Amino acid sequence: MKGFAMIKIGEVGWIEKERPVCGPMDAICKPLAIAICTSDVHTVWEGAVGERHNMILGHEGCAEVVEVGSMVKDFKPGDRVLVPAITPDWNSLEAQGGYSMHSGGMLGGWKFSNFKDGLDSEFFHVNDADGNLAHLPDSINVVDACMLSDMVPTGFHGVELADVQFGDSVLVVGIGPVGLMSVAGATLRGASRILAVGTRPKCVEAAKFYGADEFISYKNGPIDEQVLALTGGKGVDKVVVAGGDVTTYEACIKCLKPGGKIGNVNYLGSGTYINIPRVEWGVGMGHKSIHGGLMPGGRLRMEKLGALVASGKLDVSKLASHVFEGWDYVPHALQLMKDKPADLIKPVVKFAD
Amino acid sequence: MKGFAMIKIGEVGWIEKERPVCGPMDAICKPLAIAICTSDVHTVWEGAVGERHNMILGHEGCAEVVEVGSMVKDFKPGDRVLVPAITPDWNSLEAQGGYSMHSGGMLGGWKFSNFKDGLDSEFFHVNDADGNLAHLPDSINVVDACMLSDMVPTGFHGVELADVQFGDSVLVVGIGPVGLMSVAGATLRGASRILAVGTRPKCVEAAKFYGADEFISYKNGPIDEQVLALTGGKGVDKVVVAGGDVTTYEACIKCLKPGGKIGNVNYLGSGTYINIPRVEWGVGMGHKSIHGGLMPGGRLRMEKLGALVASGKLDVSKLASHVFEGWDYVPHALQLMKDKPADLIKPVVKFAD
Amino acid sequence: MKGFAMIKIGEVGWIEKERPVCGPMDAICKPLAIAICTSDVHTVWEGAVGERHNMILGHEGCAEVVEVGSMVKDFKPGDRVLVPAITPDWNSLEAQGGYSMHSGGMLGGWKFSNFKDGLDSEFFHVNDADGNLAHLPDSINVVDACMLSDMVPTGFHGVELADVQFGDSVLVVGIGPVGLMSVAGATLRGASRILAVGTRPKCVEAAKFYGADEFISYKNGPIDEQVLALTGGKGVDKVVVAGGDVTTYEACIKCLKPGGKIGNVNYLGSGTYINIPRVEWGVGMGHKSIHGGLMPGGRLRMEKLGALVASGKLDVSKLASHVFEGWDYVPHALQLMKDKPADLIKPVVKFAD
Amino acid sequence: MKGFAMIKIGEVGWIEKERPVCGPMDAICKPLAIAICTSDVHTVWEGAVGERHNMILGHEGCAEVVEVGSMVKDFKPGDRVLVPAITPDWNSLEAQGGYSMHSGGMLGGWKFSNFKDGLDSEFFHVNDADGNLAHLPDSINVVDACMLSDMVPTGFHGVELADVQFGDSVLVVGIGPVGLMSVAGATLRGASRILAVGTRPKCVEAAKFYGADEFISYKNGPIDEQVLALTGGKGVDKVVVAGGDVTTYEACIKCLKPGGKIGNVNYLGSGTYINIPRVEWGVGMGHKSIHGGLMPGGRLRMEKLGALVASGKLDVSKLASHVFEGWDYVPHALQLMKDKPADLIKPVVKFAD
Repeated sequence: MKGFAMIKIGEVGWIEKERPVCGPMDAICKPLAIAICTSDVHTVWEGAVGERHNMILGHEGCAEVVEVGSMVKDFKPGDRVLVPAITPDWNSLEAQGGYSMHSGGMLGGWKFSNFKDGLDSEFFHVNDADGNLAHLPDSINVVDACMLSDMVPTGFHGVELADVQFGDSVLVVGIGPVGLMSVAGATLRGASRILAVGTRPKCVEAAKFYGADEFISYKNGPIDEQVLALTGGKGVDKVVVAGGDVTTYEACIKCLKPGGKIGNVNYLGSGTYINIPRVEWGVGMGHKSIHGGLMPGGRLRMEKLGALVASGKLDVSKLASHVFEGWDYVPHALQLMKDKPADLIKPVVKFAD
Repeated sequence: MKGFAMIKIGEVGWIEKERPVCGPMDAICKPLAIAICTSDVHTVWEGAVGERHNMILGHEGCAEVVEVGSMVKDFKPGDRVLVPAITPDWNSLEAQGGYSMHSGGMLGGWKFSNFKDGLDSEFFHVNDADGNLAHLPDSINVVDACMLSDMVPTGFHGVELADVQFGDSVLVVGIGPVGLMSVAGATLRGASRILAVGTRPKCVEAAKFYGADEFISYKNGPIDEQVLALTGGKGVDKVVVAGGDVTTYEACIKCLKPGGKIGNVNYLGSGTYINIPRVEWGVGMGHKSIHGGLMPGGRLRMEKLGALVASGKLDVSKLASHVFEGWDYVPHALQLMKDKPADLIKPVVKFAD
Repeated sequence: MKGFAMIKIGEVGWIEKERPVCGPMDAICKPLAIAICTSDVHTVWEGAVGERHNMILGHEGCAEVVEVGSMVKDFKPGDRVLVPAITPDWNSLEAQGGYSMHSGGMLGGWKFSNFKDGLDSEFFHVNDADGNLAHLPDSINVVDACMLSDMVPTGFHGVELADVQFGDSVLVVGIGPVGLMSVAGATLRGASRILAVGTRPKCVEAAKFYGADEFISYKNGPIDEQVLALTGGKGVDKVVVAGGDVTTYEACIKCLKPGGKIGNVNYLGSGTYINIPRVEWGVGMGHKSIHGGLMPGGRLRMEKLGALVASGKLDVSKLASHVFEGWDYVPHALQLMKDKPADLIKPVVKFAD
Repeated sequence: MKGFAMIKIGEVGWIEKERPVCGPMDAICKPLAIAICTSDVHTVWEGAVGERHNMILGHEGCAEVVEVGSMVKDFKPGDRVLVPAITPDWNSLEAQGGYSMHSGGMLGGWKFSNFKDGLDSEFFHVNDADGNLAHLPDSINVVDACMLSDMVPTGFHGVELADVQFGDSVLVVGIGPVGLMSVAGATLRGASRILAVGTRPKCVEAAKFYGADEFISYKNGPIDEQVLALTGGKGVDKVVVAGGDVTTYEACIKCLKPGGKIGNVNYLGSGTYINIPRVEWGVGMGHKSIHGGLMPGGRLRMEKLGALVASGKLDVSKLASHVFEGWDYVPHALQLMKDKPADLIKPVVKFAD
């Protein structure tokens, strides 16, 4: 079969591979649509997960099941499915402890285009089909469905980690597609005021749609100073970090109230340390807790978030700014994500309707 | 001063009383608007809190401060304020333990028109002004402000007790004004599907506005059977009880998934026992947890929920179905609540703009 | 193979059965020791789980692995293992949602001597060996190991459900073997005062060893009145229910502080309703939450609780009051549990050292 | 009145001051015993809270009430009381939000020997007596009572922040008096295995008494490497930080499992940043959450932890290694804490029995 792969760090291309083999609990699927993620760019051009050879890319998409293992009960060939970026081993100790995304070791639930071939291929393999796939609701189109693999669950997880409650003021750092879903998630958890860090007009427009109230630009000085100015010196109740880098936390701690929480879902690609400012962290005793986590994957998560989109309570249509049709566009879509033109939020390539 | 009072069980009327005295931490306020609550009806005509003589009624409203005690720092005469129905003693053991509404004993934070005179009077007394009042945001009109005393915090508390999470299916029992705010709260906590029990067209219309997806009528058979039919036999993730009586829980338990939670904010006025069906409660082991609680009051709660209304993220304007102007309308408004005409949601009487 | 079975309701005996077949994820084990549970008595003589024919009894024990499926990684024939009474299907939606004990439906994780043959047999089958077995630490003898199947995790779960915190006063209803482990668990969660309901001298002695401070007898009047008398009318912070019946909750609610929690792990074998007294439940608003749940099973739980016993921080040796050696004693041990002589806590039959 | 004060940074001595004035909610107390805290040393010789002039030292002790304000209900002159180091303003927004120790601003609940005169004086002032004092149980001697001001609640709070659960493996960094109470707290929350960092023989002996299983020395290489070696490369479930400095977190993150939690109660006196290692923090997504907080103070906390000591379930007698009698010993006791001889855990000066 044909797949679009990372040949090595810095190089991508089409390759031929054997179609994956289906274990007794597994499924083989063919994509209906795929989306490109910023982390694909990190993986290929920054070597973020280390060197890989001929690894098929992609961890966002929806698909049709073509084969299932003998122990699979709830899916059969022909079923259209949501596919989470994170596909845990559910009987692992980590999953039993509530952290399925770390099954088998930290970040171990992230398999696609990390430990094994991803979705950008004629066929791809899903471990534990009953535990990790979800039926695609009829009312969700294949483009929107791709947003449920990673953007929605990751953006929303930042809001869960920050533990947003009714009436909270929330700072969201970053309004790329994940940050937009953090804005949407903060709105859907009852935040009263959402301050968003970002400037690209297309993203600002989408962020307003999703509930952001005010915008902050890196260019206008330190984020914390702007937040403190906007809040009368009080700071915010919660912070969701969906952008920036290892230096971002300093500002977040500085404008967070005691008792506040930071929820990070940003992939930190470089730097030795995250720096937490000692004094503003209350010399260790300010109750400003710091959380960072990979999105929960698996079937239940897909079913719940899928239901939110299917019911119309969450509209993800603002995310797919560029939609292409056909396999030929996959390299172009990846290149777009690398180049990040001003009007890009998310590129999607569809292979079916 | 003049006040509208419960003379005794079954009888109301205007009375003259001394203006209350302001302690060092307290405030004396005059109402800008008041709302009538179903519990006023319970109090007067059902003797729900026991016999009372010449107790001024009312626990919902907004006000202007006219006097403050010597220790009050953040409020002064002339300030316009949100007034919570529940005004805790914040240094009590119960408040220190996280249950301020039970300060000094179960339900002890409920003082207005229970242990002391309420708001339906020229002047009323607020204990611990700094701890219990909140400044009224300019963008909230006095009618909407009344909804923040009780309807919003109570309805939302049901959602907090039921612990609604992203993508949950939620049953809301009752779509009176509290139930409507439970629907709004469930939407604002990311429920994917809200089933609401109620039939009055005006309430159904408002419930749809607040996010209810489907409606269930008592008249069509047991609630649990209808819920199970609508959910393919699976039941719902969470239940908010904002109506019904002591027999309601049986249906709720029967259509709740294992691991589900019930959050009750309904005042249960009669009956000896709440009946929990043994078998459907998993013979004691089904992890269907049952929560019921009085709304959290106090300043922080008012500030947070006030911010939600002020920012436009929560529109409470559908609640005040009947708005009157002037003291003369207070008896009429109470009578309306007693009679509950089909088009009534909530009666409000305003004294200022 | 030979097994000791429920022939039908009210009748037990030895039967011959085919040795169970090992699926790819499973293990076949032979018991090293087994313990008898009160629920075996409920199952056989009260028909608590319904009619069963020739179902091998037993869900408590430790074992040696004799065969594993092709996908099993962490266990091999000859390994000595802890066996939890509850063996979930870890990829189920319920397990993904945090309630593995209800995998596949309420109480669905309880398979042994319920949906399939139990442990009282030459060989027994364990689903998902990697997810459900744990290596038996060398320092735990086979008799103590049996207490980790059900008594420890169930008793401790009551304490988790009641959410005992440092300094809490706790009422534990029942001081049979589960209740004793609830007492031990409450001590190990930092309770400052433990009131225990029970009178059998042997159990009282063990309860003192595990940390109970005062004892209450049903025979001396309503429990709630005794608790209120002992606590100066204040009641307790938390209640763990490990005994009694559907009527027990009334007393528990009556002597529980507002904001308190009840954690039930008692199997409720009869009665239509659990009765919650309306007034003392705060007319629906007292924040007295009611939790009841089946113990969490699986490997992580066994490993964690096993480590607690292995380290000497939990001494379970007071539970096995009657230890026998050899298969011939199995019927006798069951009969003992049925007869409950005064000096019985728990009967164990061992087949190895 | 006479008090032992910080004259300025680096200088201490006896001073004369006016006896403090008692507000309507307050109490004036005279100490029965006081204990010296490491933070007194930080305050005086390291200028940790900034410059102070003639500020009376001390925040640990028990006392007799000599005067109460007009609004105080539960205390009267002659009452013997536990005094928490942290005395919140309970009606503040922070306290309403669950963080009373930050009432009025981060760390704002810490008043004694920080914003106002402390306990090392003939008389001292307590804000909100009903909210912050607790009756001293008869069975607790005045020396042990001093441990309830700060050592017990602080050490235990580290365990709360790290969220220790039944069977967890826990690393406790530091076995000074706070660390010892973290060890005791971890034991009392059901940890199965406690690794403690520290080497002083007197402290090691006490740590063993409180439940530490194994000891790690800074001198034997990086902590994380030793922890990983002891745990077969797996790391620990939770970490309590009760010693070290801003560089300590690196090792803690490195030997913490994904999904683990760090609870810090160590005062971080110097350094610009706490350094969190990016890669071992899961590139932002490892679910290793970082918590740090000032102890909760106030009456409920004192009552609950006091009950734990009064019942004998917590023995704090190993902490007071040096007990003196009479005011003359106060300077010596402080000097001892500064010099930290090898056999010192905690110096106490008593003025009564």
